[in-house]
This record gives sequence, structure tokens and C-alpha cells, in this order.
Amino acid sequence: MLGNFTYCNPTRLYFGKDSLENLEDELKKYGKNVVLIYGGGSIKKNGIYDQVTAILRKSGKAVAEISGVMPNPTLKKLLEGVEIARAHKADFLLAVGGGSVCDYAKAVSVSVHCKGDIWDKYFVKFFEPVCEIVPVGCVLTMVGTGSEMNAGSVITNTDTKMKVGHVFNDSVMPKFAVLDPTYTLTLPHYQMVAGIYDIFNHICEQYFSGEDDNTSDYIAEGLMRSLLHSSRIANKDMLDYEARSNIMWTATWALNTLVACGKSTDWMVHMLGQAVGAYTNATHGMTLAAVSLPYYRHILPYGIHKFKRFAVNVWGVDPAGKSDEEVAKQGLEEMEKWMRELSLVMNITLLGADESMIEKLADSTLVMTGGYKVLSREEICEIFRESL
Amino acid sequence: MLGNFTYCNPTRLYFGKDSLENLEDELKKYGKNVVLIYGGGSIKKNGIYDQVTAILRKSGKAVAEISGVMPNPTLKKLLEGVEIARAHKADFLLAVGGGSVCDYAKAVSVSVHCKGDIWDKYFVKFFEPVCEIVPVGCVLTMVGTGSEMNAGSVITNTDTKMKVGHVFNDSVMPKFAVLDPTYTLTLPHYQMVAGIYDIFNHICEQYFSGEDDNTSDYIAEGLMRSLLHSSRIANKDMLDYEARSNIMWTATWALNTLVACGKSTDWMVHMLGQAVGAYTNATHGMTLAAVSLPYYRHILPYGIHKFKRFAVNVWGVDPAGKSDEEVAKQGLEEMEKWMRELSLVMNITLLGADESMIEKLADSTLVMTGGYKVLSREEICEIFRESL
Repeated sequence: MLGNFTYCNPTRLYFGKDSLENLEDELKKYGKNVVLIYGGGSIKKNGIYDQVTAILRKSGKAVAEISGVMPNPTLKKLLEGVEIARAHKADFLLAVGGGSVCDYAKAVSVSVHCKGDIWDKYFVKFFEPVCEIVPVGCVLTMVGTGSEMNAGSVITNTDTKMKVGHVFNDSVMPKFAVLDPTYTLTLPHYQMVAGIYDIFNHICEQYFSGEDDNTSDYIAEGLMRSLLHSSRIANKDMLDYEARSNIMWTATWALNTLVACGKSTDWMVHMLGQAVGAYTNATHGMTLAAVSLPYYRHILPYGIHKFKRFAVNVWGVDPAGKSDEEVAKQGLEEMEKWMRELSLVMNITLLGADESMIEKLADSTLVMTGGYKVLSREEICEIFRESL
Repeated sequence: MLGNFTYCNPTRLYFGKDSLENLEDELKKYGKNVVLIYGGGSIKKNGIYDQVTAILRKSGKAVAEISGVMPNPTLKKLLEGVEIARAHKADFLLAVGGGSVCDYAKAVSVSVHCKGDIWDKYFVKFFEPVCEIVPVGCVLTMVGTGSEMNAGSVITNTDTKMKVGHVFNDSVMPKFAVLDPTYTLTLPHYQMVAGIYDIFNHICEQYFSGEDDNTSDYIAEGLMRSLLHSSRIANKDMLDYEARSNIMWTATWALNTLVACGKSTDWMVHMLGQAVGAYTNATHGMTLAAVSLPYYRHILPYGIHKFKRFAVNVWGVDPAGKSDEEVAKQGLEEMEKWMRELSLVMNITLLGADESMIEKLADSTLVMTGGYKVLSREEICEIFRESL
């Protein structure tokens, strides 16, 4: 059944070709001092940097920059950015990039006016911000995380090898996001499919709990079916606007809290994958792909009703004449075929992990409740071993 | 493909049993003068009125009341309410009821500070409000319209026999809505199933356009499947909380703009049904049910791809060995079976219309574009005749 919940998601989304034209009007709502935040510089090659800075200039903004935000933003980088934003007396943070850049901007936004140890407050004790929050806007150039319409932020502490996500309250959500699917067309295939699997897994993480047939699960199935459809088209023709636009839109709804409404979630694939990411610095979506099937095959007996439903409603498995377990397993086989079709990385060895790391990976894995099975340390090690 | 669009839906939703406990904190955000708006008095019988007024008293609010808002709120009633809100110098409007009460509250909210002819401005010329908007909150007691999370308002002009809906901009959306499924449990079966069909038709209105496979359509299919599942349970056991809570949540998402994103829509079933409503004052959902199948059978040849998809993905029709047309038609047959199972009113004669009204009904029907077929006057008359 649908448990009690509060839903509020006020982010304004501008979707489609040339939707950057809305940036100027949005910027009018905020103060003069803008910090422009971006990643490794691809936005300088594809022209988006020039387009955005032209609008900032036209809007009369005083701009400071934080560049070089890495795929797994580090605490060290966060602290540097906070100093830049403080020195600039930032009124507004404009993130131009993918989920990491947007996550990072949100972490800066709750830290600029925060006193004390940011890591301890937000990523160990998971406090809500009590300080003033610097508003964030986002121009999305890469899809996958849904960060453009949620209050989540994942930061990696390289000293403690912990990659930790905090979902803040809705005051931390971006005020607006510009979603132009054409910005995603220049992404390499590897990054595109990693993003697609990240999206798919976000839906799975929220889908695999409970035994009833609630609306959130039906919406989740719709999103998964849309993603399967579009991903197969995009995998063959990366420039197909229709497919890429549907992938972008699915990504937003996969992780903006909607499909989690009334459900419990444990996000265990992310806990396992983030441990791998913290040790290997591998692309996030690929860390999820590499641990998913061993994990799902491990928990299948504890959630057989849902894995059967997944097989039938998402993968079109015909249940006639089969046991529930057979149907459920066939669903995961279909999923594996699709993953291989997309050329996803199917084991952690290829990402740079090896047997000697298993215990450390287990140390870095947060164990969560809310799914079909609370994993023991032995089970975690076993899943990592099966993922090698 | 997904056309360009802007999405913003800032309404905060409190969902679940006892979610009224959030009202007190919400009221703190607004001024002292509250206008409480409700319908025919059922909230006095079931205790919700007492609960709400106790919270208003505890919050120290000065309360005026607009009661007796009818299922199809009239312009005359709107103008009366605007006078009450003006006299009370309303800071906040609290709608307690179903979609009609919530629609009405939004119409009051854009009219209190509006100069000039309200009907002409908002329901003939469809202007956006340029005046101050009095914020609205909603305690929902009946599901169907999605009015609790959208900016729509339908008002009936009894002089001109026009029932017209205006979807305002997002500043008109309720600031919050309390959705406690237990409030809907006392509704008569007739009203419950009328609401269920209203929800279903909202999704259909947005689904039946376009020929591609976009994310909005996949989400729409998920919502429809959830509704079919829950409606069959609720039809047998109206007190099933799980089913009723899923129906309530589906209703909200069926009409809060999400499944229309990137799509064109014509809302022709509503245009036809609203004409019937303006002449018969029949329950809204039943007017839609009574005209739907003649309408859909009429436009099926123009959108055969989508009607086929509807048959397979929503109704589980097996397409093997059948022509597209056969599959598409079978989908509508399955839909008809479900409608009869719910005891929906399947013709307009039972709602009080007759042959002599056909021309007048056609006069009252707004002809819209955006669907599979722009109807001629002859076609409209034919559909009404087939609906008798």
C-alpha cells in the first residue's frame, strides 16, 4: 500500500531544443553575483560555455567560476568551491553540466553560509541545512542522475574512501533547470549508456520493495518501458532526437522522488556501486551495472512476487506454464541481454577492482533497510566476489 | 516526439491517513483572514468541517465562509463568493471538498483583485490574471479532477449554457493540498465510479494524440493500469484503503500536467461532456462516460496506431493474427466491459438529454484541435445521437 508521504517538487523545467532561451528571464529573479560551476571543460568545446556566459554578460551579472568539477566530486573540491562562493558573496549558483556538477552545486549551496564541519554535518550526520541556502539553477548537458529536479547530492571523501549521498529537503532543489536534449548528443557512447543504466537502476531501486500493486510501481514500469524503447533506438543511432529527448525526460522522473512516493527503498545497488566508485573512480552508471545482476539474483528469493511482476510487465515475459521463480529469473535474463546489447560493463574487474579489495569494498558499503533483504557483511562480500 | 514545454508544479501534497495534521503548519504561512469554501454540507455530516474549523480556530484565523458550492459551480455563485472574499479582505482561501470546490476556490482567487468582467476575461478570452492572486489551499474529500494540483478551473454560465474550463498559469495552483484517502470512503458508489471514470478519461484525453512512443504515453499507460487494477478492487469493496489511496494518487497525476508534457491535446470528450453537463447538470464523470465510446469509435480510424497500442498495453489484448483495426476495436470493447462492470452511465438519455437537445448540445460544444480529428458540426451531432 501507499504509505504516508509529503510530495513537493517546485523546480521549473524548460524542456526542448533551444530551451536555454529561458535562462535570461530566470536570472532576473536572482542577485548580481553568480558562480558558474562546470566540469572538465567539454562545455567549452561544444559551445555551451560561450552561450551561457553571453547570457550572463547580457544579464549584467558578476561571474566567478568553479571549473574542473570531477565525475565523483570530492570533499576537497567542495571546500575549495565553498571558499570561491564565499569570496564572491554568491547570490546564485549556475551549474552547467551533468549530475555531478549539479550535485556539487547543491553541496556548495548548503555550505556557503554553514558554520562548522560540512562533511560531518551533511554526509555523516545527515543534518538538514539551517543556514541560508544559495539558490541553484542548472543547465543540463548529460542525463542520468535526476539531480536537476531533486535535492540529492553525492560527495566523495577521498581520505575515508566514502562516497555518500544526502537527499536534502526540497528547499535545496534547483530553482530551475534547462533541459535541451541536443546538448546530450555529443556525449561518447560509453557515457550515454552508463547514464541510461543509471536511470534504469534509479527506477529499480525504488521499484524493488513492497508486495502490493501500487501506483508508484505502475508509473515506474511505464518509465522503464519507455527507457527500454528509447535506449534501443539511441544505442543504434545516438543522434536520434526523439529517443534522446525521451531518455532525458525519463531520467528526470526516475529520480525526482515521484516513483518513491509511499514506498520504502534501500538503494542497495547504489551502496554497492558507490563503494566501487570510491575505490576505482569508475563511471557511476558502470559501477551500478557491474554489481546489479549478482545483487538482484541474490535477493530474488526474498521478493519473488515483484521480480515476477518485473519480468511480465517490463520485459514481456510470458508466465504461462512457468513457476514464479522461473518467470522471475527469466526477467533478469532479459535484463542481462539488454545490458549486453548496450555494451555496459558487466563486472567490477573491468573497472579496476580485484579480489584483494573485497573486504575494503565491504567496509565502504553502507547497509540499508527498506528493500527485500538487509544484507549481512558476508552477503556483501559474496555479491562483490560474484561481480568480479 | 516530445515537443518543447515548461513544467512547474509547486503544490505541496500531504498524502495519507491523518495528513490533516499538516494543515496547522501550512496556515502559519498565510495571513489572518481565511475564507473557508465548501459544498453541500457533507463535510458537516462526516466530521471534516469540525476538524478543519478547530484547526482554523487554534491558528487564530478570522474565518468567513462560502458554502453551497455546487458540482458545476456557476458564474453567479462565483460572483457571490468574490464579494464575500472581498468583504472579508481574504488573505487565504481554504477549499474543503472535491474538484468543484477546488476549481471554484481558484476562480475566486484570481477574481478578488480583478477589475472588470470576470467571465469575459477568464472564460471567454482566457486571459492570465494580472492582479494579485489570493493563495488557495485544499483539503480534498473527493477525487477525480486533479484540481488539487493543477491550475484549472471550470465554471458554468447558466445564462449562456456554457461550461468552460481555463487552465491558468502555475501561480494559480494550490499552495498545498491535504489528501487523506479515508475522507473519500464515505462517498456513494455512484460518485466514486463517476470520479474513477473522470480520472481515466483525463488520461485518455492526453494520451490520444501523436503517433510516436514517448515517455508521457508510457507514464499514462502506467497510470491507467494502476487505475484499472484499483477500480476493480474498490468497485467490490469501497472501503479498501489500499485501492482508494491508489485511486486518489492516480487522480492527482492524471491531471497535474505531467502526462501532457510534450503532447498536443484536444480534450474533445470533455468538450462534449461539458455541453451535456451544462444542459442536464449531470455528474461530470457520467457525462464523459456517456459520450466516450461513440466518440472514440468515431475517431479510431484517424488514430489507429494509438488505439492499437492502447488495446495491447492497457487492456492486454493479444495482437497475434489480428489486423490493427481489429486489435484497436477490441481495446474499446474491453474498455466498454470495464465501464459496465463499474455501472457507469453509458448514454446521455439516462442523464436527461433527448433528441430535441442535439442541436443545442452541439452549439455548446467547443471544437478543439490537437487530437486525431477536428470534428465538424455534423460529426458532433452524430456522436451525440449515438450517445442517446
